[in-house]
Amino acid sequence: MDQKWLEEQKEEIGLALAKQGIRLVVPVEKQSRKRSSASAEDSTLASFIDHTLLKPTASQAQITQICQEALDYHFASVCVNPVHVPIAARILRDSDVRVCTVIGFPLGATSTLTKVLEARDAVAAGAEEIDMVLNIGSLLERDYARVYSDIKAVRDAVSGQVLKVILETGYLSKEQIVRGCILAKMAGADFVKTSTGFGPGGATVEDVSLMREVVGPDCGVKASGGIRDVASALAMIKAGANRLGASSGVAIIEGLRGEADY
Amino acid sequence: MDQKWLEEQKEEIGLALAKQGIRLVVPVEKQSRKRSSASAEDSTLASFIDHTLLKPTASQAQITQICQEALDYHFASVCVNPVHVPIAARILRDSDVRVCTVIGFPLGATSTLTKVLEARDAVAAGAEEIDMVLNIGSLLERDYARVYSDIKAVRDAVSGQVLKVILETGYLSKEQIVRGCILAKMAGADFVKTSTGFGPGGATVEDVSLMREVVGPDCGVKASGGIRDVASALAMIKAGANRLGASSGVAIIEGLRGEADY
Repeated sequence: MDQKWLEEQKEEIGLALAKQGIRLVVPVEKQSRKRSSASAEDSTLASFIDHTLLKPTASQAQITQICQEALDYHFASVCVNPVHVPIAARILRDSDVRVCTVIGFPLGATSTLTKVLEARDAVAAGAEEIDMVLNIGSLLERDYARVYSDIKAVRDAVSGQVLKVILETGYLSKEQIVRGCILAKMAGADFVKTSTGFGPGGATVEDVSLMREVVGPDCGVKASGGIRDVASALAMIKAGANRLGASSGVAIIEGLRGEADY
Repeated sequence: MDQKWLEEQKEEIGLALAKQGIRLVVPVEKQSRKRSSASAEDSTLASFIDHTLLKPTASQAQITQICQEALDYHFASVCVNPVHVPIAARILRDSDVRVCTVIGFPLGATSTLTKVLEARDAVAAGAEEIDMVLNIGSLLERDYARVYSDIKAVRDAVSGQVLKVILETGYLSKEQIVRGCILAKMAGADFVKTSTGFGPGGATVEDVSLMREVVGPDCGVKASGGIRDVASALAMIKAGANRLGASSGVAIIEGLRGEADY
């Protein structure tokens, strides 16, 4: 990517925000709260994975099962719908597996106030990582102040937790992905994330690589949507992802172990 | 449907709720707030339709357009995501077209508190009809107290507005549809509604007919998902629907007018 072009994108968005009276505080350089720079072998690959079950039909028994799997395999987190945060938090208490949930999910079209209240409620129930969907319609119509304020309000509401911002890249052009990443990082996101798994398409190597290039080394990139085997998991990490959202975490790790046998 | 079986279903659910300490107040017989008993010709068919745009990519220009169409065609309401309620309310102020929005949408898997706060926020922004998704996972695992309490909390929070409860029938067996309808009606819903349009399948004549049979004449039935022409619209009304959710409202009415020319 042309660095000059990227700088122009940032400048243009900064100007659009300034016009709306939004002044950016220069962000303190920070490490994301949950990062791993280790290479991708067995237990380390597991530590990249948010073990995910977001189907609306999920039962408490299934949630219990994925929590148990996350404990067994040492996944980074379980990612569940808000309604399941209390049970996941109860099972994972005092473990190294975190509780991740989704906000404004999967359409990103709830009000900012609702996203804030939903995120607060999730944190009160035990969520430690918050994957919010940005306002996709506003990003498409270049209402950058609205996209930024929406993310920033959630960021301020859950300042102690990891915040990931889902772009739903399947709806976006390359330029829109770049601008979404810039806005998410400006608003204080810990990660940018590709997809909900409910929209068109999922993570691609190309998009993940682009997102990493835009946010640089001090912000996370989570690839999600369609990651079902070791090959795609490793390809995403190679492209720059340091977190993977997958419902097939167990199969991915077992696949890796299978390969190691040869 | 066997009436005795239906009574048994109601009794079983009443007992399940009583076990959880939930006492049902005998509901006052009421007319749904927005009903039409007229036959389905041109302008009357329009008055059955919630003119719907729920795509996460929708722009303000598109929302403005469907509001204008709703005014021109005299649709019952426009149904938009919460983020678009303010603009729809502004355009439709002082008109006969109502503002409808969706809550816990489309997964139904947000917490009850979040659904309540989201519904209140939507009403404060101008929403007059609230289409909420019930807790699908809890219905499937027969946690009827949780399904009921979730709906009842939203009902109490928006007592002056029309409340429609979306079952997402594509995930449900016939028995689960029956039980979902019983619970929604017990909790005070004004309508039961088939589908979100984001799940598997949409409204079927068979499901709509079943839902009408369960809820009786003093509760509405909204058919939604896949209704794109006059024939399917009329089939749903014949089966018992008194409201239709459709993004193709204009095409449906124009189709009816076209037929009338011959």
